[in-house]
Amino acid sequence: MPTPPISRYPVPDLQQLPEDLRTRILEVQEKAGFVPNIFLALAHRPDEARAFFDYHDALMLRESGLSKGEKEMIVVATSGANRCLYCVVAHGAILRVYEKAPLLADQVATNPLKADITPRQKAMLQFALKVSLDAPGIADDDFERLHGHGFTDEDIWDIGAIAAFFALSNRMANLVSLRPNDEFYLMGRVPKARKA
Amino acid sequence: MPTPPISRYPVPDLQQLPEDLRTRILEVQEKAGFVPNIFLALAHRPDEARAFFDYHDALMLRESGLSKGEKEMIVVATSGANRCLYCVVAHGAILRVYEKAPLLADQVATNPLKADITPRQKAMLQFALKVSLDAPGIADDDFERLHGHGFTDEDIWDIGAIAAFFALSNRMANLVSLRPNDEFYLMGRVPKARKA
Amino acid sequence: MPTPPISRYPVPDLQQLPEDLRTRILEVQEKAGFVPNIFLALAHRPDEARAFFDYHDALMLRESGLSKGEKEMIVVATSGANRCLYCVVAHGAILRVYEKAPLLADQVATNPLKADITPRQKAMLQFALKVSLDAPGIADDDFERLHGHGFTDEDIWDIGAIAAFFALSNRMANLVSLRPNDEFYLMGRVPKARKA
Amino acid sequence: MPTPPISRYPVPDLQQLPEDLRTRILEVQEKAGFVPNIFLALAHRPDEARAFFDYHDALMLRESGLSKGEKEMIVVATSGANRCLYCVVAHGAILRVYEKAPLLADQVATNPLKADITPRQKAMLQFALKVSLDAPGIADDDFERLHGHGFTDEDIWDIGAIAAFFALSNRMANLVSLRPNDEFYLMGRVPKARKA
Amino acid sequence: MPTPPISRYPVPDLQQLPEDLRTRILEVQEKAGFVPNIFLALAHRPDEARAFFDYHDALMLRESGLSKGEKEMIVVATSGANRCLYCVVAHGAILRVYEKAPLLADQVATNPLKADITPRQKAMLQFALKVSLDAPGIADDDFERLHGHGFTDEDIWDIGAIAAFFALSNRMANLVSLRPNDEFYLMGRVPKARKA
Amino acid sequence: MPTPPISRYPVPDLQQLPEDLRTRILEVQEKAGFVPNIFLALAHRPDEARAFFDYHDALMLRESGLSKGEKEMIVVATSGANRCLYCVVAHGAILRVYEKAPLLADQVATNPLKADITPRQKAMLQFALKVSLDAPGIADDDFERLHGHGFTDEDIWDIGAIAAFFALSNRMANLVSLRPNDEFYLMGRVPKARKA
Repeated sequence: MPTPPISRYPVPDLQQLPEDLRTRILEVQEKAGFVPNIFLALAHRPDEARAFFDYHDALMLRESGLSKGEKEMIVVATSGANRCLYCVVAHGAILRVYEKAPLLADQVATNPLKADITPRQKAMLQFALKVSLDAPGIADDDFERLHGHGFTDEDIWDIGAIAAFFALSNRMANLVSLRPNDEFYLMGRVPKARKA
Repeated sequence: MPTPPISRYPVPDLQQLPEDLRTRILEVQEKAGFVPNIFLALAHRPDEARAFFDYHDALMLRESGLSKGEKEMIVVATSGANRCLYCVVAHGAILRVYEKAPLLADQVATNPLKADITPRQKAMLQFALKVSLDAPGIADDDFERLHGHGFTDEDIWDIGAIAAFFALSNRMANLVSLRPNDEFYLMGRVPKARKA
Repeated sequence: MPTPPISRYPVPDLQQLPEDLRTRILEVQEKAGFVPNIFLALAHRPDEARAFFDYHDALMLRESGLSKGEKEMIVVATSGANRCLYCVVAHGAILRVYEKAPLLADQVATNPLKADITPRQKAMLQFALKVSLDAPGIADDDFERLHGHGFTDEDIWDIGAIAAFFALSNRMANLVSLRPNDEFYLMGRVPKARKA
Repeated sequence: MPTPPISRYPVPDLQQLPEDLRTRILEVQEKAGFVPNIFLALAHRPDEARAFFDYHDALMLRESGLSKGEKEMIVVATSGANRCLYCVVAHGAILRVYEKAPLLADQVATNPLKADITPRQKAMLQFALKVSLDAPGIADDDFERLHGHGFTDEDIWDIGAIAAFFALSNRMANLVSLRPNDEFYLMGRVPKARKA
Repeated sequence: MPTPPISRYPVPDLQQLPEDLRTRILEVQEKAGFVPNIFLALAHRPDEARAFFDYHDALMLRESGLSKGEKEMIVVATSGANRCLYCVVAHGAILRVYEKAPLLADQVATNPLKADITPRQKAMLQFALKVSLDAPGIADDDFERLHGHGFTDEDIWDIGAIAAFFALSNRMANLVSLRPNDEFYLMGRVPKARKA
Repeated sequence: MPTPPISRYPVPDLQQLPEDLRTRILEVQEKAGFVPNIFLALAHRPDEARAFFDYHDALMLRESGLSKGEKEMIVVATSGANRCLYCVVAHGAILRVYEKAPLLADQVATNPLKADITPRQKAMLQFALKVSLDAPGIADDDFERLHGHGFTDEDIWDIGAIAAFFALSNRMANLVSLRPNDEFYLMGRVPKARKA
C-alpha cells in the first residue's frame, strides 16, 4: 500500500510560502530535524496558519503554573478523547520527551485514570476532558475542585484554553485527514543514544 | 438580581490594553456602537486575544463560496449544538442582520432541519455539525455529498474550519461564563427605523 | 423562499371546528391577538386537541408553589434540550412577558446554568431536565435535593409533570414540523409602548 | 420485604374521587377485574387525570390503520427504551392479550429487531423509537420510508402521537415510582382456562 | 408467521457433537427438561463452546459472598441494559426460580432502581452496570462504596466478572440472533403445582 | 513515583499455581521472553483463567478467513473504543509484529478510518465496533455488507466473536486496573536488529 498523502488538501511547497511562514517552519525543522506535517497542511492557507501557530505558541510557550509536560498531557488526553490521530501521535511524542517518560503518552491517550500521574494531574485532566466534552456543564464547583488541588484561576484558564484550542486543532486534523510524520511514532520511546 | 459580570476573569480597562488591541477594539466599537464582550473578556490575555481575532478574521472575512450569512449560519448552528450562550446570541444577531431575516437565528440555533433555508444550506449545516460533534467520523462520502450540492473543496474547508474555530470559541465562552451584551438580543429583530 | 406551511398535516378551518374548540381558540385569539399555530395544527384531530389543551391548562393554570414564570422556565429549558422550535419560540415569548425579562428565554433555552435566575430555580431546571432526559434515574436523593431548596412534594409533581407534558408536546411539534407564529419571536423583547 | 407503595404520592380513596373519575375507574375495574394502579396514582390530581385518560382514549380507541395490537407494540417498545417499568409490564400484558402472543411483549420491550413481527411492524417501531429518542431528527425521508410500507399520513400521526403520549406517560410513571399491579405480570402468558 | 430459527448459524445435531459436549448438554436437558438454545447455538464451534461454558460455570457455580440469586440479578440487569433478548428471558427465568420471586426479573431487566431488592443489591447492580457501560471509569471510590455495603474485594471481582462475562455473552447472542426457548418465558412465574 | 502494582488484586506466585496453568505460562514466557501481566492477574482465580485462555486460543489460533494480523486489528480497534490500556498496548504490540507495521497499532487504536488498511479491513473493523458498541442493532444488512467485501458467515462469526471476547477482556482489565508490561510499549516499533 503506497503511503497516503499527508492531507486531503494540496500541500504547498516551502519555497512558495510567504517569507514569515517559511522562516517559522525552517526554524522548527532545524530544531526537530523534520517538518511536522501540520505546518505543511495548514500552510495551504497562510493567514489561518499564522493565527493557528500564534495561538498555539501563546498558550504552550507561556509561563504558567503548569509544566510544559502537563500542558502536553492535556493535549494528549483531549486528543485521545476526540480520536485525533495526528495530535495523539505528535503530541504523544512531545509528552514522552518532555517528561522523559516513554510509557506516559499511551497511558494518557487511552485512559488518564490508569496513567502514572499524580492525583493533581488527574484532576487537571478530568477538567480538561470536561472542557472538551461537556463545556456547557462547567460550573463553580469545577473551579473549587481545582483550587483544592492548588491550581490558580490562571492555571485553570491554561487548562481550559489548551483543551479548547485542541478542540479546534483535532477537528482541523480530522477534516483534512492529517497524517502524522512517521518520526513521531518512535520519538521519546528509546534512549537518545540508541537513535544515533 | 444585579447583572452578573461579563466574565469569571478580570476584564481589562481599555486604556491599559496594548495599543494594537485597543485600536482594534475601538474600531469594532465605532462600527457596532458598543464593544462586544468577547473582546474585553479575551483581552485579559493579549497574546491569545490577538491570535483569536486574527484567526476569526482570516476565516470570516475571507472571500469564499459561502456568503457571509452562510458563515454565520454555521456559527449559530454549531454554537447551538454546543450550548454556548454568547455565540448563539451574538452571532445570532449578526446572522439576522446579514440575512435580513429576523426569524432565522432562533431556527438555526434550535433545529437547522426546521429552518427557512435551502437544501444546500441544510447539507452545509449537517456537515458543520458533524465536524462539531463527530469529527473522527468524517470520510470521503461526506465530501462527495457536499460536492453534490455544488460545494468545492475550498468551500468545505471553510465550513469545517468555521465549525472547528467555534468549537474553540464555544469552549472559551463557557469556560469564562462569557455574558452576551444586552444589545445583541434585539439586533436584527426589528426594522432599523423603529430602533431610531 | 415562500413561507412553509404551519404543519405537515392539513390545518382545519376555524369555521369547521366543533363549537367548543372554536370557542376556546377564539378566546385565545381575543387575548393574544392571534391564534397560536399549535391550536390549529392539533385541531386536525379534535379529540386529541381537547385532551391536550385540558392537560396543558390543568398543569399551567393551577395554583402552585411555582410562579407562572417558573413554569414557563421549565417549558423553555426542556424544549431547548429537546430541540423543539415551536415550544422554544412560543413559550420563550410567554416567559419573557411573565417575567418582564427580555433576555431570559434565550438564556434558559440555550444553557440554564448561564441564566439570570436563582440557585433555587437552577435546581428546579436541573430536575426538569432529568425528567426530560433521564427519567428512569429519578431517585430519592433528587427529592431530597429539591426539598432542600424549599420545594414541596406537590411542587415537585408540578416540575416533573410540566417536563413530562412538554416531552409529549415537543415530540408532537417535531412530528408535524409545527411552525411558530412570527409574532412570538419578538414578543416580550421590546417595551409595549414601542410596539404601538 | 414489605410491598412498596404504588406511588410516591398519596393515593386517593375511590370513594373520595369526583363522580366522573370514580365511574370511569369502576368501569375499568369491572372489565379488567382490578384497578390498574395508574388510575389511582394519577387520580391524586383529578384534573390532570381526566385529561390524561381522555388523551389516552382518543389515541388508543380511535379507528386507525393500525390494529389495537400494533398500537400496544408502540407503547411497549418505547416504554422499554424509556425504561418505564409500569408501562412495560401493564401494556406488555395488554399486548399479549390483544395479539394472543404470549412471547411478544418481552421481545418488543427488549429488542424490537428480534421480535416475531413483520418488516412493516419493525419499520413502524423504528419510527416510534425515533419519535421517542430523536424527534428533532424527523424529516421527510422518515415519512417516505413509512409510506413505502403502506402507512398513510394519518397512520404516521397515530404512530408518532402514541410514542409522544407515552413519552409523557413513562416520565410520570418514573416520577411517582408507579408500581405495576401484580396481576399484569402473568396476564396473557397462560391460556385462559388455566387461570380459572 | 413460522417460528424463526434459533440462530443465524447452523445448529449441530446433538448426535454429531463431541462426546464431552453432548454429555454436558444431556445433563442440562435432564435437569431443566429441555436444552437451552445457547448450548445448541454455540456448539456450532465446539472449542469456543467448551470455553464459554467452563467460564460460565467457574463464575456462576463458585462459592461466593453473592447468593445464586444475586448473581442472576447481575446477569439480568446488565443483559437488560445491553438489550439481549436471550439473556433477559433465560436468566430472568432462572432469577425468578432462585429467588422465588415471580415479579423480580421484569423489574431488574427494566429498571433496577424500581426493583424489590435491598439497597445493598441496588449498589451491586449499579456497579455491575458501570462495568457493563463505563468500565474505563472504574476507580477507587467505586470499591469504597461497595465496601461500605459489606462487599469484599472478592465479591467485587464476582460482580465485575459476571458483568464482563455477560458483556461477551450478550454480544454473541445478538450476533447470532439467538432465540430464547419458549419454556423460559413462563418459568418461575406460576406456582409449580400449577404447571403439573 | 513508584511503579504501581500490575493488578488491584493479589498476584499469585508462579510456583503456587496449579501445574497446568504454570506450564501454560512458562510456555508463553519462553516464547515472548516475559510473562504478560494478564496471565498473572487472572491466575488469581485459576478456573476462570483457564477458561479465559482456552477461549482466547480457540478464537485467535483457529484457522480462519481472517489473517492473524486482522484478528489483532479487531482487538486493538475495539479495545481502543473501550479505553482498555492493557489491551491497546499489549495487542498493539502483537499487531505491529504480525503485520510488520510499526505505525499500525496507534492508527487502529485511535481511529480506524485513518489507518493504513484496506477498505475490506475498514468494513471488518466497522462491524467489530458495532458488535462492541451497538450489538442490539446488528441486522441482516450488516451481514450483507460484509458478504459484499468477501467475508463468509464464518468470517463474520470470527469478527463478532473476537469483538465479543474482548468486550469481556477489556472489562476485566479495567476492573483490576491491569498494567501492561513495559516491554509491550516498544515491541514491533523498531527493527529487530536494533533491539539486539
